[in-house]
Amino acid sequence: MPGKKQSSKDSVMKDIPQSTPAPRYSGIATFMRMPLVQDPSGIDIALIGVPYDGAVEGRPGARHGPREIRNMSSMIRTIHHSTRINPYKLCNIADMGDVPFTNVYRAEEVHNDIMNYYQKVHEAGVVPLSAGGDHSISLPILRVLGKETPAGLIHIDAHTDTNDTEMGFKFSHGTSFRRAVEEGTLDANRTVQIGIRGAQNSEESWDFSKESGMRVIFMEEFTALGVNGVIDQVRLVVGDGPTYISFDIDGLDPAFAPGTGTPEIGGMTTVEAQTLLRGLRGLNLIGADVVEVAPPFDPSGNTALVAATIMFEILCLLAESIALQKK
Amino acid sequence: MPGKKQSSKDSVMKDIPQSTPAPRYSGIATFMRMPLVQDPSGIDIALIGVPYDGAVEGRPGARHGPREIRNMSSMIRTIHHSTRINPYKLCNIADMGDVPFTNVYRAEEVHNDIMNYYQKVHEAGVVPLSAGGDHSISLPILRVLGKETPAGLIHIDAHTDTNDTEMGFKFSHGTSFRRAVEEGTLDANRTVQIGIRGAQNSEESWDFSKESGMRVIFMEEFTALGVNGVIDQVRLVVGDGPTYISFDIDGLDPAFAPGTGTPEIGGMTTVEAQTLLRGLRGLNLIGADVVEVAPPFDPSGNTALVAATIMFEILCLLAESIALQKK
Amino acid sequence: MPGKKQSSKDSVMKDIPQSTPAPRYSGIATFMRMPLVQDPSGIDIALIGVPYDGAVEGRPGARHGPREIRNMSSMIRTIHHSTRINPYKLCNIADMGDVPFTNVYRAEEVHNDIMNYYQKVHEAGVVPLSAGGDHSISLPILRVLGKETPAGLIHIDAHTDTNDTEMGFKFSHGTSFRRAVEEGTLDANRTVQIGIRGAQNSEESWDFSKESGMRVIFMEEFTALGVNGVIDQVRLVVGDGPTYISFDIDGLDPAFAPGTGTPEIGGMTTVEAQTLLRGLRGLNLIGADVVEVAPPFDPSGNTALVAATIMFEILCLLAESIALQKK
Amino acid sequence: MPGKKQSSKDSVMKDIPQSTPAPRYSGIATFMRMPLVQDPSGIDIALIGVPYDGAVEGRPGARHGPREIRNMSSMIRTIHHSTRINPYKLCNIADMGDVPFTNVYRAEEVHNDIMNYYQKVHEAGVVPLSAGGDHSISLPILRVLGKETPAGLIHIDAHTDTNDTEMGFKFSHGTSFRRAVEEGTLDANRTVQIGIRGAQNSEESWDFSKESGMRVIFMEEFTALGVNGVIDQVRLVVGDGPTYISFDIDGLDPAFAPGTGTPEIGGMTTVEAQTLLRGLRGLNLIGADVVEVAPPFDPSGNTALVAATIMFEILCLLAESIALQKK
Amino acid sequence: MPGKKQSSKDSVMKDIPQSTPAPRYSGIATFMRMPLVQDPSGIDIALIGVPYDGAVEGRPGARHGPREIRNMSSMIRTIHHSTRINPYKLCNIADMGDVPFTNVYRAEEVHNDIMNYYQKVHEAGVVPLSAGGDHSISLPILRVLGKETPAGLIHIDAHTDTNDTEMGFKFSHGTSFRRAVEEGTLDANRTVQIGIRGAQNSEESWDFSKESGMRVIFMEEFTALGVNGVIDQVRLVVGDGPTYISFDIDGLDPAFAPGTGTPEIGGMTTVEAQTLLRGLRGLNLIGADVVEVAPPFDPSGNTALVAATIMFEILCLLAESIALQKK
Amino acid sequence: MPGKKQSSKDSVMKDIPQSTPAPRYSGIATFMRMPLVQDPSGIDIALIGVPYDGAVEGRPGARHGPREIRNMSSMIRTIHHSTRINPYKLCNIADMGDVPFTNVYRAEEVHNDIMNYYQKVHEAGVVPLSAGGDHSISLPILRVLGKETPAGLIHIDAHTDTNDTEMGFKFSHGTSFRRAVEEGTLDANRTVQIGIRGAQNSEESWDFSKESGMRVIFMEEFTALGVNGVIDQVRLVVGDGPTYISFDIDGLDPAFAPGTGTPEIGGMTTVEAQTLLRGLRGLNLIGADVVEVAPPFDPSGNTALVAATIMFEILCLLAESIALQKK
Repeated sequence: MPGKKQSSKDSVMKDIPQSTPAPRYSGIATFMRMPLVQDPSGIDIALIGVPYDGAVEGRPGARHGPREIRNMSSMIRTIHHSTRINPYKLCNIADMGDVPFTNVYRAEEVHNDIMNYYQKVHEAGVVPLSAGGDHSISLPILRVLGKETPAGLIHIDAHTDTNDTEMGFKFSHGTSFRRAVEEGTLDANRTVQIGIRGAQNSEESWDFSKESGMRVIFMEEFTALGVNGVIDQVRLVVGDGPTYISFDIDGLDPAFAPGTGTPEIGGMTTVEAQTLLRGLRGLNLIGADVVEVAPPFDPSGNTALVAATIMFEILCLLAESIALQKK
Repeated sequence: MPGKKQSSKDSVMKDIPQSTPAPRYSGIATFMRMPLVQDPSGIDIALIGVPYDGAVEGRPGARHGPREIRNMSSMIRTIHHSTRINPYKLCNIADMGDVPFTNVYRAEEVHNDIMNYYQKVHEAGVVPLSAGGDHSISLPILRVLGKETPAGLIHIDAHTDTNDTEMGFKFSHGTSFRRAVEEGTLDANRTVQIGIRGAQNSEESWDFSKESGMRVIFMEEFTALGVNGVIDQVRLVVGDGPTYISFDIDGLDPAFAPGTGTPEIGGMTTVEAQTLLRGLRGLNLIGADVVEVAPPFDPSGNTALVAATIMFEILCLLAESIALQKK
Repeated sequence: MPGKKQSSKDSVMKDIPQSTPAPRYSGIATFMRMPLVQDPSGIDIALIGVPYDGAVEGRPGARHGPREIRNMSSMIRTIHHSTRINPYKLCNIADMGDVPFTNVYRAEEVHNDIMNYYQKVHEAGVVPLSAGGDHSISLPILRVLGKETPAGLIHIDAHTDTNDTEMGFKFSHGTSFRRAVEEGTLDANRTVQIGIRGAQNSEESWDFSKESGMRVIFMEEFTALGVNGVIDQVRLVVGDGPTYISFDIDGLDPAFAPGTGTPEIGGMTTVEAQTLLRGLRGLNLIGADVVEVAPPFDPSGNTALVAATIMFEILCLLAESIALQKK
Repeated sequence: MPGKKQSSKDSVMKDIPQSTPAPRYSGIATFMRMPLVQDPSGIDIALIGVPYDGAVEGRPGARHGPREIRNMSSMIRTIHHSTRINPYKLCNIADMGDVPFTNVYRAEEVHNDIMNYYQKVHEAGVVPLSAGGDHSISLPILRVLGKETPAGLIHIDAHTDTNDTEMGFKFSHGTSFRRAVEEGTLDANRTVQIGIRGAQNSEESWDFSKESGMRVIFMEEFTALGVNGVIDQVRLVVGDGPTYISFDIDGLDPAFAPGTGTPEIGGMTTVEAQTLLRGLRGLNLIGADVVEVAPPFDPSGNTALVAATIMFEILCLLAESIALQKK
Repeated sequence: MPGKKQSSKDSVMKDIPQSTPAPRYSGIATFMRMPLVQDPSGIDIALIGVPYDGAVEGRPGARHGPREIRNMSSMIRTIHHSTRINPYKLCNIADMGDVPFTNVYRAEEVHNDIMNYYQKVHEAGVVPLSAGGDHSISLPILRVLGKETPAGLIHIDAHTDTNDTEMGFKFSHGTSFRRAVEEGTLDANRTVQIGIRGAQNSEESWDFSKESGMRVIFMEEFTALGVNGVIDQVRLVVGDGPTYISFDIDGLDPAFAPGTGTPEIGGMTTVEAQTLLRGLRGLNLIGADVVEVAPPFDPSGNTALVAATIMFEILCLLAESIALQKK
Repeated sequence: MPGKKQSSKDSVMKDIPQSTPAPRYSGIATFMRMPLVQDPSGIDIALIGVPYDGAVEGRPGARHGPREIRNMSSMIRTIHHSTRINPYKLCNIADMGDVPFTNVYRAEEVHNDIMNYYQKVHEAGVVPLSAGGDHSISLPILRVLGKETPAGLIHIDAHTDTNDTEMGFKFSHGTSFRRAVEEGTLDANRTVQIGIRGAQNSEESWDFSKESGMRVIFMEEFTALGVNGVIDQVRLVVGDGPTYISFDIDGLDPAFAPGTGTPEIGGMTTVEAQTLLRGLRGLNLIGADVVEVAPPFDPSGNTALVAATIMFEILCLLAESIALQKK
């Protein structure tokens, strides 16, 4: 295992049962059954929950996402079946718990809390893989990760989230990436939006994406290109610059992920989404999130399983990317 | 039918199928299948939805309450089986739709919208029967109804909702009645809180209720007194002054009303709640609300039916009260 | 906006909150948040509920379809993301409520009620887009729309619905299109049935479809042709004659639409269904229905969302078709 | 075991696994895991399913009742815990399957099928214990059991089911007992209705019950009398004449039995219902039914368990009654 | 706070967010949001999960109980509303995680694992409050707690769990307390079983309970005595000897706790159960468990909330009992 | 109908209503509404339930599979829509009930019970089509069917089930096919595993499959080959030797089959699975099973419908295969 840092984590790790021998339904539900730590030192990748859904204009519930994703993530084992990557062998990975909030009734303050929290994580040299929460959480994360160099973005979603406002509000979950471009933390020219679909009340968000330089792959083009064609486009757009992945669970068809606030029919299958993600190996990845899982709308609990598996797919990408950089 | 006002409503009424002959599953879901109107003139009692849950500190979902209560209210017919009151014969009753909001991301602004809306309803001489929404909506309603004379309150709930703040916020759904006392729209000495139970992190809310002069009937005393004993206490407390009824659905045991954000076991049965309400005939009632129905936590939909039936029980009380005053 | 008729609707329209600014969970649930009207004059397209499931031989529940489709249709916005059609700019569109029934215990009488209701709609020059209800409702609708000229039909379904009888009954939901051919309101030679699959107890319905001249595209041929190949077939069959679209939700795989009475696995995806519908632009469309949504079998509510979105796809087709004719 | 008839059942019995040793989740789901027979000869008590809900004016689904009650009845064991009655030791008991229907689209024809079926059962000297289906099924059963002597009736329900018509129909599930009185198969003076509640659109059904001589115990009187007081009333009313028990599951509060078409809050608990039934020992019982279980509205399946347990309570009553008569 | 031990726990505690200020849906789900520790030294009361259901003869799922109870226990705050006990002020309380198992396919080996685990807890002087798991887990716990002095038992349940075997097995969840008596760890004369009901296939378990000297309060006697009468009986039976509380969630009526493997209708309400528990203050309590919560049968999740609240009620009893002994 | 054996079944058949005329929701739920028999003589194909899930290491519930598959199988009619095979015309088919178990607490004993049961079925010349239960049941079935000649295997699954042990156990549901190879009842060189995916904690199971000679088609290769390519591979591997089909429902994506214990996202669609099965006509088939349906995780019940339909697809294959051999 190349270049693992010294870890202060080991002393804490013993408090959590090891993942493999214990039955999957037993033990405390941390992300991927990883140790729960507070100090990021010694960690390569932090799994972080951001239980906030106050910036939603429709159906709430994503605040319950991290809990249920943690719960279902116990089902995920360690070695990826097609790439044979075991991220836990490549990197030190831990669950850092949930971002603490000082005032959950003000989106802007929550966003500040998130920004401050990720600042510390980032300063410790740790790559964050987050579970939302609504999509507004990507904005404060990008404020940290895209601060020095505007980030490239691989954005899987039914919606471009580039409205100017939603219901009069500039920091709703449908405005994140427009704000990030305006704030200079997101590089629109290195941004690709995949799976976009569903009616809108105005064309402004689609227009903004296009005019700002983003590459928008509507669902129809996705089908026409095929996943491999899409992968080619993504690589062309983001190149080898620092790139963030933001996976809104509603990028998938609601048959695959019903538990979300703004489902749009006619979306990706999980086979397509997984194939897409596996096509992103070797990129320069700086972090990722999986957002908009709303357990109250998920009677079978499988949306949380989907999210946990998507997190594992991304975790493999991040771990390999970090391991390569360490060499 | 004594004293019905002239109604401008009739012209609108024809747009809604009449309630009795049509099957209950058919037609547009308005409250009690009443006509939908915008102009309060000519109405005696307005059924109003307040789809807001942004002041919740726990599980959201009550914003979906008015829709589902409307939906299930189609099951409720017209003549009360024990009192034989038919409120539709005593009063002009209409569904006035939902309160419109200008900024759903700020509780204070939502509360202002509610206050302004109810001000118009109140000025038209209409008695409001509201469906929440979280319990914070009672505060702006009381700002209107208790403006001239502080209102008495019959408050059925698991919680006193008299915290100073919740998570640092003064206008959360757990602070409404403390704020109302402070603002002078609620008369603590004419307030009775019924069904209180469940652990708290501090005793301050219980203390405030007591020290401000409210009569708090914890669930244990409820059981000891029996419903008739409770009714006696209520009448003693509120007397014949103007009185508001606020029914938080979590006053009921979650076996009867699982679909709510902060369920507390060990609560009232529906038999007890209905008996209690029927004991309130003849009071001077100025309005009422039924709040905290959260459909995403209600797989069978029966919590919305409970809420609709409780609304009907209260509607009978209000109608009789109004009819008596008209005479 | 070309050729809008003068509308008597505007006076009613004000009673319904406008769709865009209000949160999607608020307000009365009409189809697509459109105004509710009773008088068809001035309307181009009427959205009509037909809450009847008494002609089902299996699992009931489609009588609850219109309510839940209305409810979920609040999620649908106004501009189609790929065609950029905004149907509300092209046509006057309203919710006309549900068809009233005189005797819900007799399918034949219900069918008469439906026929009489649509006769008035048709005479007012209004194109109906209906939400069932079971599939038997298409028969009385065709009695009106195919009266002068037998209609062509684009029929998406798992079943041909061309049995002679079901359980001894000639007007069940599995016999509609045989009856319509026999009654002379459906042109079998201009009928295409798409997505057919699932075992039958006799081959008679498949045989009738074939022998009467219908083009039957079983699911296997659907897969083999691909959606674009199917679109070619459809256009070949229906030509430019007057054509009706009947979309049985069980044409979709139950993974996408579990809430239906007679689910058959191995069906279309929503991507396929939407692509198919978008391939039908420019046809001479006279009406459409979406049927067999049974909410009691739909724990997540997403089948109603699927149905609402399919209605929106069809609404765009109808609006464009009408707008073209008006020019 | 006193006076068991010679049984032709034994040869069939071997085809069903015996109830006690096999796990409760295994084997074919017959009522109480009893043998399935077609020939009533040799049986004392027949458990019969009547899967019909076409006479419902509201929410359908009771047609699925017999299946799910059978399924959950595997949970019920053999010896009653308080009376220590083992009905299977006192009587020959079998599942006779479901009543076959010739035309499910006509309530009157279904009622004829039921009547003809029960006629054969009755002629074989077998006492029927039926699982509905909607409450309309009691009418044709009474046509058989009350033919020679009008039956007394212990009727547990939220509704009196004595409307003249429902939605214009004389044989709906809300008219059964008025029809039975008119047809002379039900003795109104020996009828007691227990648990009545919920609003009605007219007082006619309550009036009919009263004026025809029925004893109506509204829920309020039920609470006031207490269960033992109610038992006294029941015994007073039905005396020692031949008596039928009809248990509508909506007599229970929907907290206890949510899966039903017309739930009314404020009903009996299961403790109360069981205590009531146990107070009926020694009556002259001629049959019984448990109706209106609608599994599509019963997410947990517990309503079917409630119904199965109520059937077991009644089965003990019937078995003891028969055994006493045999002596 | 009288007599708290020195605690090694504090260093671990910091890894878990403190309970009160964080929103209840955030953070890692430990029991009551208490710190997770492995070393029992310094703890007074350990909250322990025992996720095992292999000794069930019916519906499985209780292995998922500890996770969901932990999840819902975040809803429980710190000060008991009627006794005003704050157990966290009286004692050091921690979540010790789940018992690790070596072979989940053999009940006897699982029971050994449980015994060995609790032996260490017991030797550290820690009082265990456990969440099952099926009821077989009480046997190995009693092997530890009743080793020196046979324990008295307050057993709330629908079933006596004193069968000799179930389906040929001596260590099923229906045999625990007979085995414990035979093994000499349970004092039958100081055992009271409360809420017993539901049919059995033989009378042997009821007979064993009675003949061994246990006081069995069937549900009928429970109703007749009233809760206060039952409390008197309990105190009479257990006296001041060391006493264990075992609360099978199916002691409650399935309306209150549907999520369990062997529901029996006609059980206790939560008001009754809570009143009963509050009547047990001042006893000499040595531990307790809450068992048989089966989340797969609990669509609303409220059974887990009930279990968490019952755990809190018992936690208050244990904490007070320990605090008194320390004085 | 070629070569039907004389059947002793007819005398039993009359006890079950015939499948076609009765409504699908009526009658006793046997597999495909076939007669229930105990004596295999005269049967060609036996439908058998194996309600066991004690060898699961994760989420239990598959013991409830046979019941719910039987229940939903009433929805399946008789003539396959694409092959036009009516298996009931080709063969005598019956439901033989569930395998009886002597000790459900010991997997090895359960496996012996299964083996002994299938031995009798096999000796009677009957081909078994089984519904699990967990995947461990395939091992004892292969002990019978592969005894004389090791069987070839078409294995559809997310997992290879070729672990050496799971949680220390050699007979868990994840070890069946390794054991079968070791025991000599499965021919690894004639085994193809299709749909494999999902992370593992070690590569040993994938390695065993490969090294033993099995052809493993991971999901990625499945997508790349397309279904027809996969069919070619299957035919190449199994040739014309005796071949068993084992269909684990988790081979399908959880969007299509959520009700299973170990769901893995990114699986087959039902269209793919059905196309695959239809490509297997003409093989030398000796039996089949459909396993791992866990109804407690299947809120809509559609997973059981999927399983029943897959059983029907396989039934057609088996019936045709048998009919060809008879000729």
